[in-house]
Amino acid sequence: MQIKKYKKDFIYSFTLGAFPTFELLINKPQAVTKVIAHPAFNDMDKLKELCYSKNIFFEVNEKLLAKISDKEVCYAAGVFNKYSDNIDPTAKAHVVLHNPSDMGNIGTIIRTMLAFGFKNLAIISPCADIFNPKTIRASMGAIFKVNICIFNSFEEYESEFCNNRDIYPFMLSSKNNLSLDNCPKTNNYALVFGNEARGLPNNFEKYTSVFIPQSDDVDSLNLAISVALGTFVFSSINGV
Amino acid sequence: MQIKKYKKDFIYSFTLGAFPTFELLINKPQAVTKVIAHPAFNDMDKLKELCYSKNIFFEVNEKLLAKISDKEVCYAAGVFNKYSDNIDPTAKAHVVLHNPSDMGNIGTIIRTMLAFGFKNLAIISPCADIFNPKTIRASMGAIFKVNICIFNSFEEYESEFCNNRDIYPFMLSSKNNLSLDNCPKTNNYALVFGNEARGLPNNFEKYTSVFIPQSDDVDSLNLAISVALGTFVFSSINGV
Repeated sequence: MQIKKYKKDFIYSFTLGAFPTFELLINKPQAVTKVIAHPAFNDMDKLKELCYSKNIFFEVNEKLLAKISDKEVCYAAGVFNKYSDNIDPTAKAHVVLHNPSDMGNIGTIIRTMLAFGFKNLAIISPCADIFNPKTIRASMGAIFKVNICIFNSFEEYESEFCNNRDIYPFMLSSKNNLSLDNCPKTNNYALVFGNEARGLPNNFEKYTSVFIPQSDDVDSLNLAISVALGTFVFSSINGV
Repeated sequence: MQIKKYKKDFIYSFTLGAFPTFELLINKPQAVTKVIAHPAFNDMDKLKELCYSKNIFFEVNEKLLAKISDKEVCYAAGVFNKYSDNIDPTAKAHVVLHNPSDMGNIGTIIRTMLAFGFKNLAIISPCADIFNPKTIRASMGAIFKVNICIFNSFEEYESEFCNNRDIYPFMLSSKNNLSLDNCPKTNNYALVFGNEARGLPNNFEKYTSVFIPQSDDVDSLNLAISVALGTFVFSSINGV
């Protein structure tokens, strides 16, 4: 197979950089088809041994790394086949992203939610490419430790996973809402966040929504920041 | 003056996009030298009137906008002279960034700290260019509402502003530290955050430091995420 610079319709993608490549090898070895190292990579032996122990093809190839990475020098890369996960219906806490459009945001969100113990992410399409190397890089490889499932509509997710789960959409203004400062006590829960520019559609107002108290000096918070605050506070109060 | 694509050593910079351009005009009109609009901009009259009321040169110039903005269509831009602020020694709360290197992070941090009422930011150099259009864009124009001052060393900031102010460095590991879940009650305070890759130097261990409880599944949190959590929790408990 000839490896080319990433495009969205490929069946494979890459980790660019040593840290996410190790995370890929440790957490999703079955998806990896090849690992490539730069001749100047200073942790070569460790990477090579890990590949051999898992029967994964390993190659030193500076030219190929330069071809698939954008600009900076890349010391290691993993090539892997895209895969799909199931999210865990019994997990206490889910995160739901509704139409997220920024790859860096999605990666940062995955890294952050994992930091607070959330391991199940539902994404409602249309959405940005979760396997783009930019998303993977922003996640620092956390993407390989979180179950991620894409749904065609929120209703599709809800009917399958929310029979016994409270839904908390995060909205700036709603008739029926709670401040994050008074985070509710809840059993199983799903925290739902909208698109970067548009937020959530009005039909989410039928649930009790949550707002993050903030000054009138700003228009809104960045999406990844909102998810970080929501997951931190809910996990502190309710666990995950 | 001929306007060129931005470089760090320019004495001027730009806001690219309508929202930050309005924020610039409203909050730092004295720094603005020119406003440029795209012929298809849909809020042209409002922008033009605001410029006239403040005696600021206004021009419709699609070609110039394309020249100074990177790729996307830009509907409005403001040209302004770089300026320096003083931070307020009497403000209850300061944020300090030690050697921040990512422009997007700095912009997101400024937007987030303002959302929680923090209006004074000390930056310890070396640091990324705070007036780069990328920083300004990530701040969504919040940069024009926050006092930002650059210091050559943390000691320079500390000797001038911390006679009566508690210093809380955010560190992953330290001998003497507190969890953000048990945020201390404090009078005047400064929250100090390190570089994206390196964190804070060891000599900050002489203060009582704060850590954000997080899973071993991740290496660390993104800098802007850490600042968001620190400012949200400290402001909830202590005010700003």
